[in-house]
Amino acid sequence: MSKKRLAAQIAREVGTPALVVDLDVVERNIAKAQAYCNAAKIKSRPHIKTHKSAFFAKMQIDSGATGITCQKLGEAEIMAAAGMTDILVTYNLLGEEKVGRLGRLLQTTNVTTVADNPVTISGLPRAAEIGGRTLDVVIECDTGRKRAGVESVGEAIELARVIASTPGLSFAGFVFYPPDQQMSGSQRFLDDALRGVREHGLEPRIVSTGGTPNLSQLGDLKGMTEHRAGTYIFNDRMMMAKGMATLEDCAVTVVTTIVSRAGPERGIMDAGSKTLTSDTGGGLEGFGHVIEYPNIQVAGFAEEHGFLDLSKSNDRPQVGTVMNVIPNHVCVVVNMFDRIVLTRDFEIIGDTPIEARGKII
Amino acid sequence: MSKKRLAAQIAREVGTPALVVDLDVVERNIAKAQAYCNAAKIKSRPHIKTHKSAFFAKMQIDSGATGITCQKLGEAEIMAAAGMTDILVTYNLLGEEKVGRLGRLLQTTNVTTVADNPVTISGLPRAAEIGGRTLDVVIECDTGRKRAGVESVGEAIELARVIASTPGLSFAGFVFYPPDQQMSGSQRFLDDALRGVREHGLEPRIVSTGGTPNLSQLGDLKGMTEHRAGTYIFNDRMMMAKGMATLEDCAVTVVTTIVSRAGPERGIMDAGSKTLTSDTGGGLEGFGHVIEYPNIQVAGFAEEHGFLDLSKSNDRPQVGTVMNVIPNHVCVVVNMFDRIVLTRDFEIIGDTPIEARGKII
Repeated sequence: MSKKRLAAQIAREVGTPALVVDLDVVERNIAKAQAYCNAAKIKSRPHIKTHKSAFFAKMQIDSGATGITCQKLGEAEIMAAAGMTDILVTYNLLGEEKVGRLGRLLQTTNVTTVADNPVTISGLPRAAEIGGRTLDVVIECDTGRKRAGVESVGEAIELARVIASTPGLSFAGFVFYPPDQQMSGSQRFLDDALRGVREHGLEPRIVSTGGTPNLSQLGDLKGMTEHRAGTYIFNDRMMMAKGMATLEDCAVTVVTTIVSRAGPERGIMDAGSKTLTSDTGGGLEGFGHVIEYPNIQVAGFAEEHGFLDLSKSNDRPQVGTVMNVIPNHVCVVVNMFDRIVLTRDFEIIGDTPIEARGKII
Repeated sequence: MSKKRLAAQIAREVGTPALVVDLDVVERNIAKAQAYCNAAKIKSRPHIKTHKSAFFAKMQIDSGATGITCQKLGEAEIMAAAGMTDILVTYNLLGEEKVGRLGRLLQTTNVTTVADNPVTISGLPRAAEIGGRTLDVVIECDTGRKRAGVESVGEAIELARVIASTPGLSFAGFVFYPPDQQMSGSQRFLDDALRGVREHGLEPRIVSTGGTPNLSQLGDLKGMTEHRAGTYIFNDRMMMAKGMATLEDCAVTVVTTIVSRAGPERGIMDAGSKTLTSDTGGGLEGFGHVIEYPNIQVAGFAEEHGFLDLSKSNDRPQVGTVMNVIPNHVCVVVNMFDRIVLTRDFEIIGDTPIEARGKII
């Protein structure tokens, strides 16, 4: 069977738009990332935000990952219920609703959480109290992305001291998300932070880095203990643009059908912004890569329609044509679906729920 | 209670990010749209893609709507199960999976569907056969938006003839989505199409227009029988930008918490692209309007973080501050949530499921 015939079968049996994964590619991607980690002698703690599914988390653990990373507490609750025992939540959890849930999760699961500010830290002892054990807290550090995290070594050291002196909490280390393949700034930050906390008798157990692009530079940050990569398991157009993946490394496609031909230079598919999302993948041209028609541009969306610019493609789909589209950013697209179709060797072998889809709370 | 205290209560009891609706505003918005329809003596057939919820569809029907519009068949199935009896699906349904489901839906529900091409029409008799009754088909016409729909009167007339001569199908009329408040092109198209089909002895039962902005011009298209508006029930930043709504007309907010203060000019909230989506609302600056801090710009997203530019706001939120954000495009944001919190007079009065969330198939 070919990819084209598989897509036609999916359209017939599942209906389009459908989210489809090639398990052979997934296994190859997981093995490659694990090999990077093994070579650098660091632990792999994949970020499950990409697949949001117990099925794939178990594949990662079975291949050598020593734990998982979640972004939202709701994801961690789902993964704990599915049997994950070592979970890092890389998110400031605050407010009594979150703290209460974190405490209840801590009763059954080894959870580590992050903080980048004193307000977050001040709420966490209540979670430890509910959980009935010490809560490990790592400090999130921002070395250039301008996202979450303390931006100065001084703040990092100060927060480490606050955590260490707070009953119920244990200072567990640092979390970084270094700008892609630029470890030097993070190295200076880490070296200074390590020196600082050691002066106060504190020793980090975890020094974590993140990002799929950084897999190729694992070990360059001296002192790191584990890595959080997410997108690598599926890959997408963004990873191709960064040179981290080829077309053959992309495991997930959205199978769509042309439902209206519109004008001669236009085509319309049944996947719009409620399927492929408006994520530009960091400024890519178009909203997806059509495998069967690589010169077609996914030019724009209505909510349930994708508008195709056919002008640069000699080969043009007709109404009823079924195609595979690689998303710009796979993590946000997986989150739009309740289930994912599992395939191997161009055969459907089943499907699996995306249990943590929409777990934004 | 104030909006601020309500938001704090929601954060405590529901957790953030939360999707929250003010039912007083909803009722006002529905009444206003229905009054427009009544004044123009045309039927209201609201598009449920905005709320995707039986609760709000019933409010619309109870206020005078004579049926509903769905974009995807999955939405129509949910709405039929919830008791809706007159459903227009404004989408080319094709392929045996869709045709089979349409036929089964037709067994219990009065469904009208659209076509803008012969391939779609050729599949529909099978749905009528499964449904055990004639299927009403309207022709989708594009008078300038460059979306789905035939672009010439000649095609419209030809498709009407094909439908009328196809066993099991009945030609039911025309569907337009006129460019905002520009009815003249649609009027010429409709007049010519009416003349053309009447020459073949065909008479449309439905002439439908769409769009919230077109509510203020209802009746300007002579010959229309019903209108499909969606966003008006909740409104959003896009409708404000179009001059169709004020802040007071926006019924839905996302309640978020500041989880990291980051740098002095930056703030980070717990709603990112997996909550507010990357929809720019047709090119608006920023990704939402923060009611309590109108000078803050929602500058960008990670998946679970919203990055705020505080530089133009003298008043700045702190870690733990809870805020209400009006989305750029409410239809795609509602689709990210499983439930919506119902409020009235700044009190939580319950919640309701968004049953058709994610029904993209």
